[in-house]
Amino acid sequence: MRQPREILLNAFTMNCVGHINHGLWTHPRDRSHDYTRLDHWTQLATTLEAGLFDAVFIADIVGVYDVYGGAIDLTARESIQLPVNDPTLLVPAMAAVTRHLGFGVTVNTAVEHPYTFARRVSTLDHLTDGRIGWNIVTGYLDSAARAVGKSAMAEHDARYDRADDYLALLYKLWETSWDDDAVRRDRDARVYADPAGIHEIHHDGPFYQSRGYHLSEPSPQRTPVLFQAGTSGRGQRFAADHAECVFISAGDTDTARKVSRQLREAVVAAGRRPDDIRILVGISVVTGETDVLAEARLEEYVRHANPEAGLAHFAAGSGIDFSAYGLDDEIAYGPTNAIQSTTALARQRGLTKRQLLAQLALGGRYPLIVGSGDTVAAELGRWQAEGEIDGFNLTRTVVPECWEDFVRLVVPALQKRGLYKTAYGERTLRHRLFGEGDRLSPRHAGSKRRAHFGLGAAK
Amino acid sequence: MRQPREILLNAFTMNCVGHINHGLWTHPRDRSHDYTRLDHWTQLATTLEAGLFDAVFIADIVGVYDVYGGAIDLTARESIQLPVNDPTLLVPAMAAVTRHLGFGVTVNTAVEHPYTFARRVSTLDHLTDGRIGWNIVTGYLDSAARAVGKSAMAEHDARYDRADDYLALLYKLWETSWDDDAVRRDRDARVYADPAGIHEIHHDGPFYQSRGYHLSEPSPQRTPVLFQAGTSGRGQRFAADHAECVFISAGDTDTARKVSRQLREAVVAAGRRPDDIRILVGISVVTGETDVLAEARLEEYVRHANPEAGLAHFAAGSGIDFSAYGLDDEIAYGPTNAIQSTTALARQRGLTKRQLLAQLALGGRYPLIVGSGDTVAAELGRWQAEGEIDGFNLTRTVVPECWEDFVRLVVPALQKRGLYKTAYGERTLRHRLFGEGDRLSPRHAGSKRRAHFGLGAAK
Repeated sequence: MRQPREILLNAFTMNCVGHINHGLWTHPRDRSHDYTRLDHWTQLATTLEAGLFDAVFIADIVGVYDVYGGAIDLTARESIQLPVNDPTLLVPAMAAVTRHLGFGVTVNTAVEHPYTFARRVSTLDHLTDGRIGWNIVTGYLDSAARAVGKSAMAEHDARYDRADDYLALLYKLWETSWDDDAVRRDRDARVYADPAGIHEIHHDGPFYQSRGYHLSEPSPQRTPVLFQAGTSGRGQRFAADHAECVFISAGDTDTARKVSRQLREAVVAAGRRPDDIRILVGISVVTGETDVLAEARLEEYVRHANPEAGLAHFAAGSGIDFSAYGLDDEIAYGPTNAIQSTTALARQRGLTKRQLLAQLALGGRYPLIVGSGDTVAAELGRWQAEGEIDGFNLTRTVVPECWEDFVRLVVPALQKRGLYKTAYGERTLRHRLFGEGDRLSPRHAGSKRRAHFGLGAAK
Repeated sequence: MRQPREILLNAFTMNCVGHINHGLWTHPRDRSHDYTRLDHWTQLATTLEAGLFDAVFIADIVGVYDVYGGAIDLTARESIQLPVNDPTLLVPAMAAVTRHLGFGVTVNTAVEHPYTFARRVSTLDHLTDGRIGWNIVTGYLDSAARAVGKSAMAEHDARYDRADDYLALLYKLWETSWDDDAVRRDRDARVYADPAGIHEIHHDGPFYQSRGYHLSEPSPQRTPVLFQAGTSGRGQRFAADHAECVFISAGDTDTARKVSRQLREAVVAAGRRPDDIRILVGISVVTGETDVLAEARLEEYVRHANPEAGLAHFAAGSGIDFSAYGLDDEIAYGPTNAIQSTTALARQRGLTKRQLLAQLALGGRYPLIVGSGDTVAAELGRWQAEGEIDGFNLTRTVVPECWEDFVRLVVPALQKRGLYKTAYGERTLRHRLFGEGDRLSPRHAGSKRRAHFGLGAAK
């Protein structure tokens, strides 16, 4: 068991109505349909910063969930991540009303050439003054492939090879194209930037080619904090090379500990230290003034949740059309080209559809913690210690009250137990997470790229 | 001469230091180097809304200006649109502090597949509540092509064929994928959206293929207000089909009138009405309490401007390396694959380099109007009437004072002459510009696409 320290906390959300806990948009107090309004997001950011959240983590998907019943019927009716708007565009408005809150934004490497994507991220790092993280996803929906004119998604492992090449090019742009002292802003000498400090990068990789200057001057973190969620064998190797924060799914602390140890071993094998990654588990929390009131609130939520919608969501991730099963049929899991073991459910073989649905009572498949602020704080502390993890991606239930309740009830209880910060640290998101400066660790692959160009250690 | 009406006014800027009037970043009061800070942009938005500006028009370039001297030396030293950050990410923060100001954002069709770009724009239209415009550019820098792994930019006319296909796919996504009444938000019936009202689009064009549902529900304008700047023969045909606002360059009112008449004829030939497009001319203004004070301010600005930097910028647009010419050499213009006649200078054959530089005294190549608020207002009125145009893209000089001075001195003078609104109109950017509703005109190509699908007239 590792020594407990301050728990890291991300709010897990998405620029859409139904994210993880499906059906709750029908709750009379739920406002998730306001996702198209800027004030919905600026209010969220303000609430999270009041609760000292480390970051808001914004999921994304390109494509639609059309596996369940072979159609989008339930997807549309329950707004299961459809409609879904662009996540990056929420960040500038939320950053404008906060000073410390970090942002983890999901962007699929299949969407855009790394050259222009690099600028998009650098722009966000500038505008947030070093508070941006990127959740690297490599895509898994065939519907997305068809939408951008390809016949089917690339095979699972090949997607990671392509992503490796994508990252290699990004590191060149972010870390090596502009020297730290290239920007002078010297009005008298008429030198905004010294051309000798700006370098054309050359990349001739198996998937991407580029020759050019990075369009952005160096931002506070240069490379954003890198998040990743793949926990398959190939996904773990990718995480070991690139990720600074890994988001895992685990139904219990034993599973969390097992995955956590595997990941840290892989990180060490990649020449880094076990603590060079932060591991976060996805959870749902329903809290109240007392345990009894929290249970009552859960019961009220469950009446609006839709377990079948949760199953339709899971169908897309697992590639299995659960609609074809009877309630007492055992689900047969076969090999799939979809997400591999990002969900705890996928590891539970031999369940019937009825048993699956029972686990999705709140409409989602994340471990659920219910109780007073102190009960939840104790359980989060147990997860952290026994699961050997660093923190949590907290999913939403009924918004905005789920965030407000957590900040009001759970945060003070965590603080009382010494499990949570009482003020934000200074500087960038990366420095607050790792305490080793604003830039990539010298042990990270992207930083080595930097050293290779004779640019010295990251500052 | 057309009847004068209220002048349309866009602030013309870019997410970079040096935009049009180069060298002014060295002026002691200039703050354009604050472009990486959110408050720089939110303050701009607030100033512009106080001045009832119709929109802020944000230029962009992917690639660098490396024609002048065959290198980026002067480009870097004078920050000639390098560094340059992403323009779209400024909009959410500016939208959050304004209610009426529109946004015209430049995005190159070569950057991203239309499927994901469509969602990015829909997201902006949602978050701004219908205030988004898109300035369609098809790209012209070889440096950009190399940066995204292509050997050279496509030939000029072929770029427009590709853009036509890009737009055709976008119209399908924006206008036809979701019915107006598809989104129900009916909690009791558990129907967020009716699947029967969401249609998969199919596109098998010469350049782009797609099969899928648009990811965003209908936004207030569906298709953003379409801006365009190409005034070559092929560019005019493209504008006649697609553009709602056209941004032209003209050194004098005779040229403006000629281009304006050509454009409106092309629009009529495309089955639209002459007033279905708004034509805006790029200008620079230096104003002051009196004419004498304005001239003094100009003199002060000119001391910090850099005409050679203006020439380096123009070199990239024209494809001519002016650095190879002596001061008294006449410039030889040949055929080029670059921008065709978007600039008035390009039409002035037979100038020597010295004469060109004299026209770039303020560091930029836009017509310059200098004087008191009333003098400038009179001159803008003359341009509008004689040039048969609808308004202006006002470039920046020394920021933020150029915006503040214009709002303080010129706007009231325009209002006194009845040439400018005294309050914002209601609803979306499109409705404020054309007064015919939030959606594309039924005469527009994108709207015909809608009718083709039996979806009725735009509302």
